[in-house]
Amino acid sequence: MNTEQMYLLLRDSILRNAHFTAGELDLVMSFFKVRATVKNERLLSRNDICKNLYFVCRGYIRIFNELDNGNDITRFVAFENEFGTAMPSFICQAQSAASIDTPEDSYLLHISHSDFHFLLDSLPQWERIYRINLEKAYIASVQRVEMLTMMSAREGYEFLLSHFPQVVQRLSNKNLASYLGIKQETLSRLKSRR
Amino acid sequence: MNTEQMYLLLRDSILRNAHFTAGELDLVMSFFKVRATVKNERLLSRNDICKNLYFVCRGYIRIFNELDNGNDITRFVAFENEFGTAMPSFICQAQSAASIDTPEDSYLLHISHSDFHFLLDSLPQWERIYRINLEKAYIASVQRVEMLTMMSAREGYEFLLSHFPQVVQRLSNKNLASYLGIKQETLSRLKSRR
Repeated sequence: MNTEQMYLLLRDSILRNAHFTAGELDLVMSFFKVRATVKNERLLSRNDICKNLYFVCRGYIRIFNELDNGNDITRFVAFENEFGTAMPSFICQAQSAASIDTPEDSYLLHISHSDFHFLLDSLPQWERIYRINLEKAYIASVQRVEMLTMMSAREGYEFLLSHFPQVVQRLSNKNLASYLGIKQETLSRLKSRR
Repeated sequence: MNTEQMYLLLRDSILRNAHFTAGELDLVMSFFKVRATVKNERLLSRNDICKNLYFVCRGYIRIFNELDNGNDITRFVAFENEFGTAMPSFICQAQSAASIDTPEDSYLLHISHSDFHFLLDSLPQWERIYRINLEKAYIASVQRVEMLTMMSAREGYEFLLSHFPQVVQRLSNKNLASYLGIKQETLSRLKSRR
């Protein structure tokens, strides 16, 4: 994937939700930098302050909570054409409870917190883009709470399959099980039943 | 609490986060209607479409998931000076997985989905108000996921006490236990230990 293709993906994604003049769009693009990562590369560690918002062109980013026993719990994933980062830390510029990595070789565009806020203050349409992506992330988080509190292992798995099939298809069994809040053996049983 | 006091609270809350001209502020206010509720009054039932966003002037609203066994799980609460509703349903104008009630006698202002979107399209500063409140709600939801997946009962309780003390102080033991994802007996033990 070359740089031009990456910026085209970002441009298309943005224009789907808001109107920008050519000059405004060029301004937005000028703040995004390219980052290519290898499988399992770490982008943020727990307790660091998250300085970047990512747009995924290929691969995906995984936001996860590390546990003291060496395991971790997948909290959020963003795939191609999606924005993502450790949002609470990015928003508050406070230490992050979560870490970020790229489970696949990935091509990302990223914008710094200060450039992001410069755009928020300069372009009302950028606020709209952000708001729409926040809505999506918020809904996914609420559904995650419902999955953890109300749904059986099977219901949670079926919900993911129908609403977020990529999560089921692309996450490792270990990461998917932690996302569902179930044991890996339970997940294997659910998968083999289908 | 009289109507004038209610609109003053809303006005102050909005001006804390954005700049409006007097005319714009009057426009915003004109879309909010008063609603007074009694204890445990129902504002939304599961499977209905959530048509209103609420601003709490006194009391609080509780968003909860009803279970088939007659119990429910508290998913979100909004207290005085906070906005809240069954957001996924309000955003998508789709059937709500959650219900809403007011566990205390409450004074609310509410705006309809269509008026809300009229303001989003008319006033960039309204988009900002919404975005800032979405960020707060999103962070609370992410912390809820972390509470359910990573924290012990005691850690979750301590986290709420330090970050959202009103949740601990004002929710009934039953509702607080379901918010923490723990049994009522466990909660009673935690409370008595302090």
